[in-house]
Amino acid sequence: MSEKSIKVFAPASVSNIGPGFDILGFALNEPGDEIVLKKLINSQIEIASITGDGGKLPFDILKNTASVAIKSLMDKYQITDGVSIEVNKKMGLGSGLGSSAASAVGAVFALNELFELNLSKEDLLEHALAGEFVASKAIHADNVAPSLYGGIILIRGYEPIDIIKINTPKDLFCTIIYPDIEIKTSEARAILPKEVPMKSVVTQTGNIAALIYGFATENYSLISRSLKDVIVEPYRSKLITGYDEIKQAALEAGALGCSISGSGPSMFALSNSEEVANRIALETKRVVTNIGLASVTYVSEVNQVGPKILN
Amino acid sequence: MSEKSIKVFAPASVSNIGPGFDILGFALNEPGDEIVLKKLINSQIEIASITGDGGKLPFDILKNTASVAIKSLMDKYQITDGVSIEVNKKMGLGSGLGSSAASAVGAVFALNELFELNLSKEDLLEHALAGEFVASKAIHADNVAPSLYGGIILIRGYEPIDIIKINTPKDLFCTIIYPDIEIKTSEARAILPKEVPMKSVVTQTGNIAALIYGFATENYSLISRSLKDVIVEPYRSKLITGYDEIKQAALEAGALGCSISGSGPSMFALSNSEEVANRIALETKRVVTNIGLASVTYVSEVNQVGPKILN
Repeated sequence: MSEKSIKVFAPASVSNIGPGFDILGFALNEPGDEIVLKKLINSQIEIASITGDGGKLPFDILKNTASVAIKSLMDKYQITDGVSIEVNKKMGLGSGLGSSAASAVGAVFALNELFELNLSKEDLLEHALAGEFVASKAIHADNVAPSLYGGIILIRGYEPIDIIKINTPKDLFCTIIYPDIEIKTSEARAILPKEVPMKSVVTQTGNIAALIYGFATENYSLISRSLKDVIVEPYRSKLITGYDEIKQAALEAGALGCSISGSGPSMFALSNSEEVANRIALETKRVVTNIGLASVTYVSEVNQVGPKILN
Repeated sequence: MSEKSIKVFAPASVSNIGPGFDILGFALNEPGDEIVLKKLINSQIEIASITGDGGKLPFDILKNTASVAIKSLMDKYQITDGVSIEVNKKMGLGSGLGSSAASAVGAVFALNELFELNLSKEDLLEHALAGEFVASKAIHADNVAPSLYGGIILIRGYEPIDIIKINTPKDLFCTIIYPDIEIKTSEARAILPKEVPMKSVVTQTGNIAALIYGFATENYSLISRSLKDVIVEPYRSKLITGYDEIKQAALEAGALGCSISGSGPSMFALSNSEEVANRIALETKRVVTNIGLASVTYVSEVNQVGPKILN
């Protein structure tokens, strides 16, 4: 009993931006997931199809990120009609690019449009987070919020959730290099120390403070000097084959800085021109190819809009 | 053989601003120290007098903050004349208000003027730091740099020293409440943990990032939400009698936030009007008086100029 349908795009995102572990992320223009919803009158939530996931994502509506997000939203607003969900993954699972967050965000954005709920993004956030939770087993808004709002997003804290959109310098470009390595998010979490030396805390707070001020004042030199992570990168970079060489290639190609996207294996590099961003993609891909690994690269400005309707 | 002389004022400063432990400080219009220098032709460095220190500061030119700073500068530029130094302390020693930093800054600033060296503040910085080092036994620029440059100063890092002047919101006021308690900086350092839980690191970085963005965008609500220190304050506040009540009084009087200035015992509160700042001074002083302690309060905007010539 399909009535009307909607197709949306929701952007991938980079989280853990250098010294901004668990607090800072930004959205990308590409890649991103596509979600197609069809309204089903007097029916239930169902997952009609999933593509691009290599058969890995669950069709169980209590386990799939998109359906859990939609169910959370429908329950809250007591929507009694159903919906058929089509999930088209346009990026690798476990890429470090906020894949599950994009699907959850796309799902709630699409539902809001399809059912004309007129909810704000603030209203949608908790339901996208609920969807992402089933994939990551943790509430981390640093992928969900950038994907939903677009832009560079700071999560100040969680009690209550406090989201601040940070100015994006106008010439900022991001290069993603996604080498074909599998990293389990759980392993990337487990490898981190539980305690951090005070000296490292001072270094990290100095860098995150300067990075934020660099974004605010569009000071690329400051962004470059402060895009340094002394707490997480030393551990997680060990999980990425060739990390040091890839990073060096990015910096030699003109990157302002380079670090791990999310929990990897994708790496991101920032630059202040599209030309440099493209050169970084070329040079880092060359290094990864020489190591003997396949890879995908993306060059993108920071996405400023979040999800959008495609049809 | 005195020839000519100069009298300068160098401002006190607040360091360790909430989540900005060891990286963030700002200068005050008052209090501050006065330094008087007299040029001595073909002579040496000597300390002529020290007032306001209760007899505690050394006259040994290798141990006094002001003379060490001056000696460092004179050695560097091979100045063969001498100078007579008068140090007039206008704030308590060990107040947490960057007293030794102010004397060191005043000394190098005065010498630069007196000998017409035409050095920049960047040139003066290392010598002021050398002076401050003999007092604190550590290189911490978060009092010296604000006192020298004025404004809100971020120390991104020390290798090499990277100083960034942060925008001061135009209505920002600071109240200082300085209770008559003695805290040794060494004790205040020793009480701190060597390691910090990762969860606290995430909270602290979220708050310092938001505080900097609040200053940059003059967002007082954001400044208020983020002026929180989960790492240092829980330990050092125990050294300040009545800390919780004083802080509560400041917040109830309308403070955006309140924390420890430097390593205490002074506390600072930020507000967005002079009226509120004065009310905070009144209410916090009342609490300290009720505890049975003497106290001094100051109300000041952020000093934007650093040291200045008085005569």
